[in-house]
Amino acid sequence: MSTICAISTPSGMGGVAVVRISGPDAISACDRIFLPHNKDHTLGSRPSHTLTFGKIVYPATGEPLDEVVASVYRAPHSFTGEDVVEISCHGSSYIQQELLHLLTETCGIRLAQPGEFTRRAFSNGRMDLSQAEAVADLISSQNAAAHRLAFSQMKGSISAKLDGLHDQLLRLSSLLELELDFGEEDVEFADRKQLLDIACQIDDEVVRLSDTFRTGQAIRNGIPVAIIGETNAGKSTLLNHLLGDERAIVSDVHGTTRDVIEDTILLDGQLIRFIDTAGIRDTDDKVEHIGITRTYQRLQRAQIVLWIVDGTRLGEENQAEACARDANLVYNHFEPYISNQKVLVVVNKIDLVSPALLKHYLPIFQGMLSRAIQIGRHAAFPLEYVAISAKKDIGLDELRRKIAEAAHLPQYAEGDVVLTNQRHYEAMLEAHAGLRQVIDGISERRSSELIAVELHLVIDALNSVLGRSITSQDTLNNIFKHFCIGK
Amino acid sequence: MSTICAISTPSGMGGVAVVRISGPDAISACDRIFLPHNKDHTLGSRPSHTLTFGKIVYPATGEPLDEVVASVYRAPHSFTGEDVVEISCHGSSYIQQELLHLLTETCGIRLAQPGEFTRRAFSNGRMDLSQAEAVADLISSQNAAAHRLAFSQMKGSISAKLDGLHDQLLRLSSLLELELDFGEEDVEFADRKQLLDIACQIDDEVVRLSDTFRTGQAIRNGIPVAIIGETNAGKSTLLNHLLGDERAIVSDVHGTTRDVIEDTILLDGQLIRFIDTAGIRDTDDKVEHIGITRTYQRLQRAQIVLWIVDGTRLGEENQAEACARDANLVYNHFEPYISNQKVLVVVNKIDLVSPALLKHYLPIFQGMLSRAIQIGRHAAFPLEYVAISAKKDIGLDELRRKIAEAAHLPQYAEGDVVLTNQRHYEAMLEAHAGLRQVIDGISERRSSELIAVELHLVIDALNSVLGRSITSQDTLNNIFKHFCIGK
Repeated sequence: MSTICAISTPSGMGGVAVVRISGPDAISACDRIFLPHNKDHTLGSRPSHTLTFGKIVYPATGEPLDEVVASVYRAPHSFTGEDVVEISCHGSSYIQQELLHLLTETCGIRLAQPGEFTRRAFSNGRMDLSQAEAVADLISSQNAAAHRLAFSQMKGSISAKLDGLHDQLLRLSSLLELELDFGEEDVEFADRKQLLDIACQIDDEVVRLSDTFRTGQAIRNGIPVAIIGETNAGKSTLLNHLLGDERAIVSDVHGTTRDVIEDTILLDGQLIRFIDTAGIRDTDDKVEHIGITRTYQRLQRAQIVLWIVDGTRLGEENQAEACARDANLVYNHFEPYISNQKVLVVVNKIDLVSPALLKHYLPIFQGMLSRAIQIGRHAAFPLEYVAISAKKDIGLDELRRKIAEAAHLPQYAEGDVVLTNQRHYEAMLEAHAGLRQVIDGISERRSSELIAVELHLVIDALNSVLGRSITSQDTLNNIFKHFCIGK
Repeated sequence: MSTICAISTPSGMGGVAVVRISGPDAISACDRIFLPHNKDHTLGSRPSHTLTFGKIVYPATGEPLDEVVASVYRAPHSFTGEDVVEISCHGSSYIQQELLHLLTETCGIRLAQPGEFTRRAFSNGRMDLSQAEAVADLISSQNAAAHRLAFSQMKGSISAKLDGLHDQLLRLSSLLELELDFGEEDVEFADRKQLLDIACQIDDEVVRLSDTFRTGQAIRNGIPVAIIGETNAGKSTLLNHLLGDERAIVSDVHGTTRDVIEDTILLDGQLIRFIDTAGIRDTDDKVEHIGITRTYQRLQRAQIVLWIVDGTRLGEENQAEACARDANLVYNHFEPYISNQKVLVVVNKIDLVSPALLKHYLPIFQGMLSRAIQIGRHAAFPLEYVAISAKKDIGLDELRRKIAEAAHLPQYAEGDVVLTNQRHYEAMLEAHAGLRQVIDGISERRSSELIAVELHLVIDALNSVLGRSITSQDTLNNIFKHFCIGK
């Protein structure tokens, strides 16, 4: 196993930076460039979990680079399970780079890949794969709920849950094997009713677990809220007001919001992730066309859709017909992509419409929207409307309240395991599919051998979450490449 | 003395972040939120220079925030000389903020001011003021030479030098006092010749030291090179090519470079700091006028001036007269601000001039420039010219070579003390002025009392560098406010 090093602290200048070195040569290699203040305190002589003051020197010239404190952790009592040295140096970019250079050029230590320290902790049995993945989540979590989930996963909440399921699956498996052993005599020992009960129990648990993923995603990444509507209906202005800064580009030219822009706010304690989208209109502009295609894709993943309508058009001549036509146009555009989303119709720019007109036309308009929607497939999908002026900050509080209501997540108790990781979710779907086969097999009295094969696929799926079955290097590479360097 | 805390690592997300706590309550306060893995290992029970694994918990709920490693340093064996705890947590922004919040709200620890840890190290006699100031320089140094100077100053090179001078001054002072004691008898005991020799020696040393400041500044901040010339002569384009990226805004509109832009490159191992300036022309635009005023100010501090001339004008009709007029115009603008600077005339856009024209007119132009300059006060100031095309990358290597030549710094030997700090430089100037008075006083046989007063001002000036004389809180506030938080 090679010895690796990396800057573990955030990049840039600061009071202190930490360079981490892990591997069999960590201590001896560092002693080549570390001159202890007390000359007897070479790192090789120091016990685990001690701090040693000294200098980093260029061995060739003896010239000092910095005064540092070196932490020594001896295997297996370290994060990686290997010998680890952490050097706390002054946080100058120059010193950090020179120190890395010394470690790699003079001490023969290799630069670590992203997440390689955590990967080693996993390889050395210090944590399972779900815990290792939670380390990256913990570092990137930005609110209390996401942090709490990541921390409990790092401490093994998923591992404990899956261990329980694993035990049940092994019991099922051994009952089946009992039958297999007597297979030739065509005797059916195992109580198929009991087998079925166990399999259904496990499957219920797996489904419950995979159902938490939507909540987990929402907690980790925010509840996705897509903002759609005609061009120039004021989508970007609204988004800016909701976000409280100038995140999206606003302009009076039609079709300026070409890129999908995402940003988050906390609303009533819930993280909301807004997705601004390209306006919908027939266009020959290629770039804009790409933006519109993306709009459709994002829409499918949204949980709430804010459909912005330009309220001034309610005051135009033949407004009833025009609005109905546009409502139908927009609806037809989006309809194939909307399934379970809650839709909030937001009538914008009401400051430019006289109150009388507004009072007169809003109910008519609302009726038309309802009709337009009822024409579509999802006659029952929830529809509410809010009248606002993004520019004049009218009705925005009511809009925020309605968004928070619509965003309401299923509540899970403190101890509940909530999935946040796509890979874990997919493994659960796989386990569920396998369990359905197992249940059908038992019900239909298929041969025990066939059922046993399915059962092992289920066990493999659960094991893959913890990295217990043989996990391919590709999978591991893919998991750890999203880590930051130095962790 | 209160207990203080701050994030010491660079801001942002990373694998690891370090929160530093220093003061009499550091250890006991941390024990209120630190739950050691081995329950006997409370921080209060741990020896100095040890690492303890555990959790940070919210005391009210017992809920964990993070798994951390806590370093314990006991007074006086720490950076500040006080009890210090450093908590290495996961580098999530959320965890860092929560941990600070716990320390301040739950543990009653105060947030540290910028540089407050170093200030305490100074107050507790762990380092003198020049060493404390060098800590900030060390962290901000970005090249080998600047780093080497800051490190040697942090290790006390200035202190040692000034200690030597201080000893000599005390000797001078005691010789004078000897005379004072016998003053009433009007006896002149001290050998005035000997006094003069000592004073001159000290003054020579002080002058030598203050002379290093220009080099020190150049090493630390780069050798200042001002780029001046008519508007639209291609100054920004040239700067961008020299810097290798798009640092300044380029446009074809006259007078677009309104702000003074500075950036550095390493040329032949020397740090060069380019100062782009507003073009010189008569203008009514207020903003541009401010830019031009700044140009003059920066010019005075430049060591090299690149005077860019639009070469295409050499190909225009009546070029000789036009160029002479412009050369005079520009020269008259700049002349009051140029004293010791080396001037490189850079004829730009030569790709747009036919070689024949160039060959014909360049010598004429050069002659005119020389004449224009000889009319001015500084007939002898160095003048060279280079023909280039910034856009087509013609002649830039020659220009770089000439800049590097002109930038050549006086060489100092490894062990020499080089001043980098404006405050130290000013103290040396003050000491020099005082010493001139002392020397004059001795030569003119002024009374010993008068000389002694001057001598004490000199001693105070040197002491102020080390922070030994009573240093005002304002001075200290001013010094440490430029530090980063957490150091």
